[in-house]
Amino acid sequence: MITVEQATEYVAQYAWPKVPQSVPLEDALNRFLAEDIFSDLDVPPNDQSLVDGYAVRATDFSQRVFREKGVEGGVELEVVEEVTAGNVPASRVESGRAVRVMTGVRVPDGADAVVMVEESSWQRETGLPLGVVHFNTREVVVGQNIMPRATSVRYGQLVLSCGKRIRPAEIAVLAQVGRTDVRVFGRPQVAVLPTGNELVDGGFVPGPGKIRNTNGPMLIACGRQLDADVLDLGIGRDEPQQLRNLIERGLSADVLVLSGGVSAGTLDLVPAVLEELKVRQVFHKVSMKPGKPLWFGIAGGNKDDSNDDRSTLVFGLPGNPVSSFVCFHLFVRPAIRRLCGQAAGEAAAPKCSALLAHPFEVTTDRATYHPAWIDWSETGPTIAPVLWHGSGDSRGLADANALAIFPEGARYYEAGQRIFCHPLD
Amino acid sequence: MITVEQATEYVAQYAWPKVPQSVPLEDALNRFLAEDIFSDLDVPPNDQSLVDGYAVRATDFSQRVFREKGVEGGVELEVVEEVTAGNVPASRVESGRAVRVMTGVRVPDGADAVVMVEESSWQRETGLPLGVVHFNTREVVVGQNIMPRATSVRYGQLVLSCGKRIRPAEIAVLAQVGRTDVRVFGRPQVAVLPTGNELVDGGFVPGPGKIRNTNGPMLIACGRQLDADVLDLGIGRDEPQQLRNLIERGLSADVLVLSGGVSAGTLDLVPAVLEELKVRQVFHKVSMKPGKPLWFGIAGGNKDDSNDDRSTLVFGLPGNPVSSFVCFHLFVRPAIRRLCGQAAGEAAAPKCSALLAHPFEVTTDRATYHPAWIDWSETGPTIAPVLWHGSGDSRGLADANALAIFPEGARYYEAGQRIFCHPLD
Repeated sequence: MITVEQATEYVAQYAWPKVPQSVPLEDALNRFLAEDIFSDLDVPPNDQSLVDGYAVRATDFSQRVFREKGVEGGVELEVVEEVTAGNVPASRVESGRAVRVMTGVRVPDGADAVVMVEESSWQRETGLPLGVVHFNTREVVVGQNIMPRATSVRYGQLVLSCGKRIRPAEIAVLAQVGRTDVRVFGRPQVAVLPTGNELVDGGFVPGPGKIRNTNGPMLIACGRQLDADVLDLGIGRDEPQQLRNLIERGLSADVLVLSGGVSAGTLDLVPAVLEELKVRQVFHKVSMKPGKPLWFGIAGGNKDDSNDDRSTLVFGLPGNPVSSFVCFHLFVRPAIRRLCGQAAGEAAAPKCSALLAHPFEVTTDRATYHPAWIDWSETGPTIAPVLWHGSGDSRGLADANALAIFPEGARYYEAGQRIFCHPLD
Repeated sequence: MITVEQATEYVAQYAWPKVPQSVPLEDALNRFLAEDIFSDLDVPPNDQSLVDGYAVRATDFSQRVFREKGVEGGVELEVVEEVTAGNVPASRVESGRAVRVMTGVRVPDGADAVVMVEESSWQRETGLPLGVVHFNTREVVVGQNIMPRATSVRYGQLVLSCGKRIRPAEIAVLAQVGRTDVRVFGRPQVAVLPTGNELVDGGFVPGPGKIRNTNGPMLIACGRQLDADVLDLGIGRDEPQQLRNLIERGLSADVLVLSGGVSAGTLDLVPAVLEELKVRQVFHKVSMKPGKPLWFGIAGGNKDDSNDDRSTLVFGLPGNPVSSFVCFHLFVRPAIRRLCGQAAGEAAAPKCSALLAHPFEVTTDRATYHPAWIDWSETGPTIAPVLWHGSGDSRGLADANALAIFPEGARYYEAGQRIFCHPLD
């Protein structure tokens, strides 16, 4: 049996970003950049005021070259212009003068500092925006409250790299550099096919020997959570012809996720049907718990989308819901993220470390992924495996916000030991 | 000026879950439960096999009550039935006999353990599912590989609580207990209105004194990230009548998010127009950096939706993109999450702690939220404030996956000090 790390490697070898497409900026959220983004301007475009206040010459404060109209310890300057947002200054700031400026406007020529409006009081002359401003402060430093031109971004600078996920901050940067459209990697289609004669559709009361189909809705939700285009194939029965037809439909997608039918049961037909359909097995069985029966293979050749000649990644997940979930998280999620265009090093399931909140005994030799709760406490994260009755217990999974990772080897873990975990979305 | 904690309290006082609605299970992902969910069945419905194997009597192994057909150290039993998924056993397991069972099927009467198929070899009789099975193991414990009835969930048990976010694991539990529809809290509408004469639409090259509208697309993306129904109001100009009309439209939503026009600039008309429209100010200005000019108020009264008599929460965010982003994350996001129905204690922006990766100096007295990068290293999370040029620098925000929180008070922080941070979505 191969290890989780080996299985991860195998899947990564077959998962490549889809062909890029152009989308309007408003549809780009949570997609992955398929181009490097360069700035078409300086930000700010000129030396700009960071506050609402007065553009002044710092020397008017330090050298007391100002008119003191009998005010104790203050500085008074003549306001010669007011520049509101969207406008540019017309005048130059000479000694003894100031220009009223709003946040973000260009600092007038001659000025080398801006004093905040909160540090001043202004007597307007009747009917005019002009008048005399009195400052309470004398501590004015050259450059104060000024953001020099191009501090944030320089014309031509690389501002976002190909493969980056587009979050609200990236939307802001894209809007800032004038992008109304952006090239992103294509959105993968993910077909979902739970299999098994024991499955009944939600809403029906399961008869003897039957259970409700939980994997179907869960795996569809897992795909949607990743913004994939999900194709719901219904329920596959343990009957070769029907299974073959459904799997054939699923092979039109970028990823086909089956569940059930991959163990050692006598009706576990999935591997045989996949072989018939020329899906090449890459591996079957991984040394992990839950999830050991995982099957992974590749169907080659062209797809309907003639621009996209990649193959279909086929995952046969175990039928137990928690096994299915864990395998999805560890193997299918990174594959989908990679198809979406996430950079290779970043597509893996996110990992962090935490201290065990209570002792825990691992009784299997296989690497174990146990539903757990991370507490982001003041003194650093701790993790507590939740009460969980094995791979059929999806109830326990709903109490978890992480999977605790116990590496290969049966072992007793003391409270306070540091272990790795996968936080869950 | 009030503190961030006080402002958070004020907002929480006005943010209540929307009126619940029923949605199909397939539309429930990422919504919040508006009902407690109880199970309509036992899971598993009876004692069930956890593996593919043979249901046996443990005493047949320990007491050697079996037929040894000359096989060294092995145990042989007669297979009297095979039960595949979806079917129920017809026979009882007597001493010397076994029933072939698949994962998930009911354990036949008489059997008290299941031995994995991997630990056996089976000689079928020609044309029959029956035959003799040989086991390599003699270590069989009562209850082995059997999940007793109702281990995971008992009939009538509370399985999910009101206010819980519906992730794929919750979808699995809802499907398991037969829910095809589920009551969730309503989806809030969030209106977005950036203001300012300096703003030009994306795609245009800004003339002198102008900048591109980055807050609009960014705040729309922030709302969509939370699955809110976003109403894009375009750009508001610093002109009272047009601003009044747009704000009036925005007041039909559950949340109105304005940006710009709330500082001390002479064209900062937003607070005055809001007052005219009978939006009651709750607070203006918060002791934080960036984000000090934040304005928050409430417009009362009934809405179009006659079932929903809640008021509109109005946020006047500062015009600088990073100030806007930080205020959205700290105040608007928790409000939206609460309207979506998230439990009161869980709606706040998520927080964790990490060790400072390098020394950092805070020069303001206000609480500081600095874009930063959390590294989830093997030895616990570390956080490095990113190079960031202040509230106009959205470029720096794109390099961040967290906001580092420095509490009130100018201070020098040593590398290795533990600080809190808000991880970003």
